[in-house]
Amino acid sequence: MKYILRINMNDRSYRFEDVPEKYKLLGGRGLTSNIVYDEVVPTVHPLGPNNKIVFAPGIVTGTNASTSGRISVGAKSPLTGTIKESNAGSSFPQDLARMGIKAIVIEGYQQDDKYWLIYIKWNKEKGMPSVEFLPADEYVGRGLYDVFPELHERFGKHISISGVGIAGERRYLNSGIVFNDIDGRPSRYSGRGGLGSVLASKGVKFIVTDRSGAPRVPLADPALFEKGRKKLVDALREHPITKPGGGLNALGTAVLVNIINEVGGLPTRNFRSGRFEGAAKISGEAMAQMIKERGGGRMGHPCHPGCIIQCSNIIPNPDGSEHVSVIEYETTWAFGANCGIDDLDVIAELTRLSNDYGLDTIEMGGTIAIAMEAGLLEFGDGQKAIELMHEVGKGTPLGRILGSGAATAGKVFGVIRVPGVKGQNMPAYEPRAIKGIGVTYATTTMGADHTAGYTIAPEALSSGGQVDPLAVEGKGDLSRAFQATTAFIDSTGHCLFIAFAILDIPTGFEGVMEECNGVLGTNWTVEDAPKIGAEILKVERKFNEAAGFTKAHDRLPEFMYYEKLPPHNVTFDVPDEELDSVFEKM
Amino acid sequence: MKYILRINMNDRSYRFEDVPEKYKLLGGRGLTSNIVYDEVVPTVHPLGPNNKIVFAPGIVTGTNASTSGRISVGAKSPLTGTIKESNAGSSFPQDLARMGIKAIVIEGYQQDDKYWLIYIKWNKEKGMPSVEFLPADEYVGRGLYDVFPELHERFGKHISISGVGIAGERRYLNSGIVFNDIDGRPSRYSGRGGLGSVLASKGVKFIVTDRSGAPRVPLADPALFEKGRKKLVDALREHPITKPGGGLNALGTAVLVNIINEVGGLPTRNFRSGRFEGAAKISGEAMAQMIKERGGGRMGHPCHPGCIIQCSNIIPNPDGSEHVSVIEYETTWAFGANCGIDDLDVIAELTRLSNDYGLDTIEMGGTIAIAMEAGLLEFGDGQKAIELMHEVGKGTPLGRILGSGAATAGKVFGVIRVPGVKGQNMPAYEPRAIKGIGVTYATTTMGADHTAGYTIAPEALSSGGQVDPLAVEGKGDLSRAFQATTAFIDSTGHCLFIAFAILDIPTGFEGVMEECNGVLGTNWTVEDAPKIGAEILKVERKFNEAAGFTKAHDRLPEFMYYEKLPPHNVTFDVPDEELDSVFEKM
Repeated sequence: MKYILRINMNDRSYRFEDVPEKYKLLGGRGLTSNIVYDEVVPTVHPLGPNNKIVFAPGIVTGTNASTSGRISVGAKSPLTGTIKESNAGSSFPQDLARMGIKAIVIEGYQQDDKYWLIYIKWNKEKGMPSVEFLPADEYVGRGLYDVFPELHERFGKHISISGVGIAGERRYLNSGIVFNDIDGRPSRYSGRGGLGSVLASKGVKFIVTDRSGAPRVPLADPALFEKGRKKLVDALREHPITKPGGGLNALGTAVLVNIINEVGGLPTRNFRSGRFEGAAKISGEAMAQMIKERGGGRMGHPCHPGCIIQCSNIIPNPDGSEHVSVIEYETTWAFGANCGIDDLDVIAELTRLSNDYGLDTIEMGGTIAIAMEAGLLEFGDGQKAIELMHEVGKGTPLGRILGSGAATAGKVFGVIRVPGVKGQNMPAYEPRAIKGIGVTYATTTMGADHTAGYTIAPEALSSGGQVDPLAVEGKGDLSRAFQATTAFIDSTGHCLFIAFAILDIPTGFEGVMEECNGVLGTNWTVEDAPKIGAEILKVERKFNEAAGFTKAHDRLPEFMYYEKLPPHNVTFDVPDEELDSVFEKM
Repeated sequence: MKYILRINMNDRSYRFEDVPEKYKLLGGRGLTSNIVYDEVVPTVHPLGPNNKIVFAPGIVTGTNASTSGRISVGAKSPLTGTIKESNAGSSFPQDLARMGIKAIVIEGYQQDDKYWLIYIKWNKEKGMPSVEFLPADEYVGRGLYDVFPELHERFGKHISISGVGIAGERRYLNSGIVFNDIDGRPSRYSGRGGLGSVLASKGVKFIVTDRSGAPRVPLADPALFEKGRKKLVDALREHPITKPGGGLNALGTAVLVNIINEVGGLPTRNFRSGRFEGAAKISGEAMAQMIKERGGGRMGHPCHPGCIIQCSNIIPNPDGSEHVSVIEYETTWAFGANCGIDDLDVIAELTRLSNDYGLDTIEMGGTIAIAMEAGLLEFGDGQKAIELMHEVGKGTPLGRILGSGAATAGKVFGVIRVPGVKGQNMPAYEPRAIKGIGVTYATTTMGADHTAGYTIAPEALSSGGQVDPLAVEGKGDLSRAFQATTAFIDSTGHCLFIAFAILDIPTGFEGVMEECNGVLGTNWTVEDAPKIGAEILKVERKFNEAAGFTKAHDRLPEFMYYEKLPPHNVTFDVPDEELDSVFEKM
């Protein structure tokens, strides 16, 4: 790809820069993290004028490589204070890649409280993209489900959209970057870390892309690329988790509910238990059954064009009309088990409101659970939870607290059982019952994040090996290996879910490397993947260290060290030395 | 002193322990910080079961040394996450010292949401103190002005009281430890750092002391002590700032308003200017004039028996009846200049409400200023500010936000101009206009704290030397010297205000050392004072490092590096290396 598009919102200027040599082999997370490290002073205020936000499609994004429509968004996070990369699947990065844009770097600051829409369109005459800044104040203060159709009306059905909801406008620490799904819904999110508020702090409301007429992504070695592409497709079509009709496709990511509940690692009622008596009612199986019974809705829905796995879903109302897309595993957990709620319709409505306001569902569910812990409502009270979400939308003082994420809400409500690391609430896997994921939560550069080193694969899914989730030994090595490989996958533009297939099917992994080599002209092998990933992690770690993070922050919340988790009645007993070994041995 | 009184609130047990050899020469801050360092794991949750809270009178407290009725309270702070020592003047530490209690260490955790009153009384028969635990739920949820008279009714006029208000009960990050003043008012505070919530988290509502019949504090060398005592008294009576009728006595600490305003260092409207057009109306001079005109009230009021300086005040209502005691300089600044409010009656009411609820006035004023910055009310709107304080008292969501201190309120409201360090809001001196105090704010182990190294003395008051406030050079050395000497003074039990006299009058400083030697049997000289202080600071620093603090936290908020402060139009331009030199050269 040819350009880095640098936009300065102080004066709404932009320029297309040549890609510096040092960034040429980077994409996705590798690129966002390196640009943030190179250009942002680690001690800046995340919502101040000196932070920057970077959008980067992955290395193979925009090609016809399967399941590769991921975009990385990077910045210093207002939620965690760390460097942050949060990625999503959408046609948006495919548009950028097709227009030759390797990254968008947005700097400067909102002027006169005004919001802008950045319209990036392929200019056929010039053979390069054009950029326009259009006033966007008309979209401010409104729900994204209201605004997205207007944007499609105005710019066409074929465009892609990124932007922020009212959560970002209000500078909530919980605010995501929204992307369109395959049908144009505001439902795909770079949710974690409050990056929506960073974008909003620059005065950017939306980025709309129109790649019409843009050429294909150039390939250094088309034959090699095609060879690799086929190997990966074959692996994805073969693996039981990723294949058509397989676990993810048939039941969505919520296929995990019953599995993780069985393991005793489904955090329930703000991490008071690892097993939820209502698990079956909020599971992927229950969603599939609901779709079948009600008509309408859909399992096996793709988030972006070209995905084989197709793990998204559309959840229907009782009358079969569409309620919301998508309820992921982490979402049905966050609003379900973690809040003691076993009603899928309630979970669907909480999800819809999150999408509409521009919130991360994991952080939002975690925060409602904190409100429950604080006694504002009972665990399990779905209707009251929906009312709280409306407060978030309205921006009342209570809504502002809840929009601030679990760690801040915990401080405001005086709750000490806040299951977060570095200010980010833990997702849907109990680290006391599944120790490897606890090591990832503690040590990842991102704050508590399952995607950063998904040891769940071997600890609960027998993928990429088989490891006792309750065992302590070796979990530092396990997490390190997953974190390094993940940082690489997050750079390719592939969805992390390819990991199931490529960890178990060696030719699949070879295929990914051949795809990258086919695009970049490199000679990477499978062995290079974790090395490339480790280099990215080291850059992120250096940023965090300069921002003031130490080993003391690479720990789980104190209560998990002394409070026993049912049903296994276990604490988090991975020694500090094991946690520290993750980066010391990298 | 003979005992360390260790109380465990898990089972309301206690024991009187012998003072370990290593603590024998410590008192006040030196003792609280060492006990916290020795006994509290730095990564514990400050409001969890594994934090401890320590009360320690100073080395000479309880003797007839002048101006020595200070108590240090130490714990890991919920506001800052650092070690914390916050001290106040009251008869309470004099009671402890007379009963032979060198420190109270409170550990364990609140059980069954119940609160207790710890009643410590001298037992003449046994010749030692007795301890009782009395149910205190009847005092919960009520204002301290309502409860204190009941406690005096119940236990006698001569008792001393420490405890928490509703701010602590609600676990606000802004919550102080209250102490009685000389007339029994709930008006003396170990205010900073949220220690009230730590005490409340143990289930302790009040500690009541009755020393009736207790012997004098034993002296190792009574003659030497008396010699030192007289030297200090002479110095205090001679120095223009501390002498009877001098600056502090005649006009209270608010004598500083006009002085610091003239320097251009009076932070105004959330640190947007260094000069307040309404300064004269909220000054010590204005308070004295108000008292004169209205009748009632009083300047030159002592906070504890045996103080020569007597810098406290009682502010009258328009009809001459008592409104509140005390409006300190930092208080009239926090609710006044920093909120753009120039009405002393409004400031008095905001102060009274803070005392009643158990809040730190510096943090509270700073937080109201953040609410003003966020647009919840206009700068200068005193009536609305009073309404907000009632919200804090009621514990509404808005009140909870405001009770969480400026840093958290800033996060919730999306305000980036938060003038704090390590989560604690800056007090009444603008670091851009008075650089030395900026070095102290940045580097002290306490979060932004003027008392930790009061370079204002030479930078604005020509005391302890004379230094250009706007100069950068040498400010690291200056702050280090003040921080070290302060840590020593905070350990003696003397009020920090003796520093004016002892820094300018060498015999006064000698007197302090002779007092200490007279109590302890040591041979300390004036040269030992900063060395002893530095050792305390190093212990505090070690705690903070293990808690996760680094150089990156020893910085002022970013906006002060790029936003120019009127009237001098200066940024904070002390280089990082100068800041780092404070501890590197210690």
